[in-house]
Amino acid sequence: MENISKRIKNLPIGIFDSGIGGLTVAKSIFNLLPNEKVIYLGDTARLPYGTKSKETVILYSIECLKFLLKKKVKLIVVACNTASSVAVPFLKKITKIPILGVIAPGAKAAVQKTKNKKIGVIGTVRTIKSMSYIKEIRKISTDVKIYSQPCSLFVQLAEDGWTDNKIAILTAETYLNTLKKEKIDTLILGCTHYPVLKKTIAKVMGKNVILIDSGEETAKEVKSLLEKQNLLTNRKTKGTHKFYVTDFPSNFKDISERFLGKKIRKVEKIKLQ
Amino acid sequence: MENISKRIKNLPIGIFDSGIGGLTVAKSIFNLLPNEKVIYLGDTARLPYGTKSKETVILYSIECLKFLLKKKVKLIVVACNTASSVAVPFLKKITKIPILGVIAPGAKAAVQKTKNKKIGVIGTVRTIKSMSYIKEIRKISTDVKIYSQPCSLFVQLAEDGWTDNKIAILTAETYLNTLKKEKIDTLILGCTHYPVLKKTIAKVMGKNVILIDSGEETAKEVKSLLEKQNLLTNRKTKGTHKFYVTDFPSNFKDISERFLGKKIRKVEKIKLQ
Repeated sequence: MENISKRIKNLPIGIFDSGIGGLTVAKSIFNLLPNEKVIYLGDTARLPYGTKSKETVILYSIECLKFLLKKKVKLIVVACNTASSVAVPFLKKITKIPILGVIAPGAKAAVQKTKNKKIGVIGTVRTIKSMSYIKEIRKISTDVKIYSQPCSLFVQLAEDGWTDNKIAILTAETYLNTLKKEKIDTLILGCTHYPVLKKTIAKVMGKNVILIDSGEETAKEVKSLLEKQNLLTNRKTKGTHKFYVTDFPSNFKDISERFLGKKIRKVEKIKLQ
Repeated sequence: MENISKRIKNLPIGIFDSGIGGLTVAKSIFNLLPNEKVIYLGDTARLPYGTKSKETVILYSIECLKFLLKKKVKLIVVACNTASSVAVPFLKKITKIPILGVIAPGAKAAVQKTKNKKIGVIGTVRTIKSMSYIKEIRKISTDVKIYSQPCSLFVQLAEDGWTDNKIAILTAETYLNTLKKEKIDTLILGCTHYPVLKKTIAKVMGKNVILIDSGEETAKEVKSLLEKQNLLTNRKTKGTHKFYVTDFPSNFKDISERFLGKKIRKVEKIKLQ
């Protein structure tokens, strides 16, 4: 028993996303749990998930899950808002390994941090329409007010590195105007691309608004869950990070560096069924 | 023989694209050839092609082609710049039916229309990097100067309907500044999404710059090719338009209406292998 637990402790954490956005989540996990091994899968051949039907997203997520299960991971993070909102319940039926999405941790943190009980949520059109953050917040609090706003242009701005120029600021002002008027004090960045634009969003919202980075909150949740289950690695050295993609998108290197905050030295291209 | 030719004349034109951008090309074909039947296939489940590897784009394009061939079309338009630039030679090996991409017609028109022999090309990062317009222009002219500029944000602006607000104008000014300085007199809109932003692009470039809409040029090429091969329909009434997609993206109805200039009444979801 002792040996089995020891063996599991040192297995990697698995992360998957439709593409590269999840790298901001991976970055938070690398920072908080540097000694953990991590396997990242970006289903770049089929990105984005956000425009696809629910059935398709579930199917693709199951394929990503199966790939990570074959790699023998101890915990799986669904680092994609779309997949988190529609596929997690289905994934949990397939395996007993803990599965964490990015929505619940972000929702929980926002409820804990708001003082005036006015929370804003920004995300892609699909995430906002799915009301997944609202549903998750409502599970833990019925007395906060929630204001949401799709910010579809933010993804392209983040990928192009237009993160703090005039256009980024004007776009942020246009999207965030209503949330400012509603005097929210907490804002959930409900898309894995948005942390790249955090400075501009913070500038536009003002210093009294707390930004909730779903990636950071998810990393905290991963740590807490591994602690509870006595599954944190006992490795004393830095864990290795492996990256798999299903295709190489144009600008992959530049974008991934911007999202991860470091160079990815080796990426392997694989096929999902 | 007479009968076979008559039967072929009245077969539909097939159009495929990775998604909805090709609807601007379809719109031009509907306008120029109202009595032709048209079958449109948008591979929305796998959009965008622009981020995918060459091999993947070729594979997907072949699948789209095969679908249209089964529907018995008389001519196929590849209404996608990425697929046009990498897949057309492969598609031509599969069938003897005429296949037209959107790049050659745009390139040809630009060379014909420029007076000062300075042509600009705008498109997605992938299209610009592929140098497909430059290669096509060079086939017909070696003495024009070509200046190209990727405008990746334009796609999202078009899809969101932010086509003439401050952000659209500022974005266009930022991207087009270099081309203006080079004093180009002709600008190829090298992405099927860009005609939606035509007014803003025209405003920024000024009235002395001719905009080449690849969709319109492709429609003219379709007409000329059908005329030459005696394959124009002899139908005296409006042709029917059928739409197939591989998935329903969010906002599909709104976006398709904006791109096509009319409502799509019926869309069928199909599976490609």
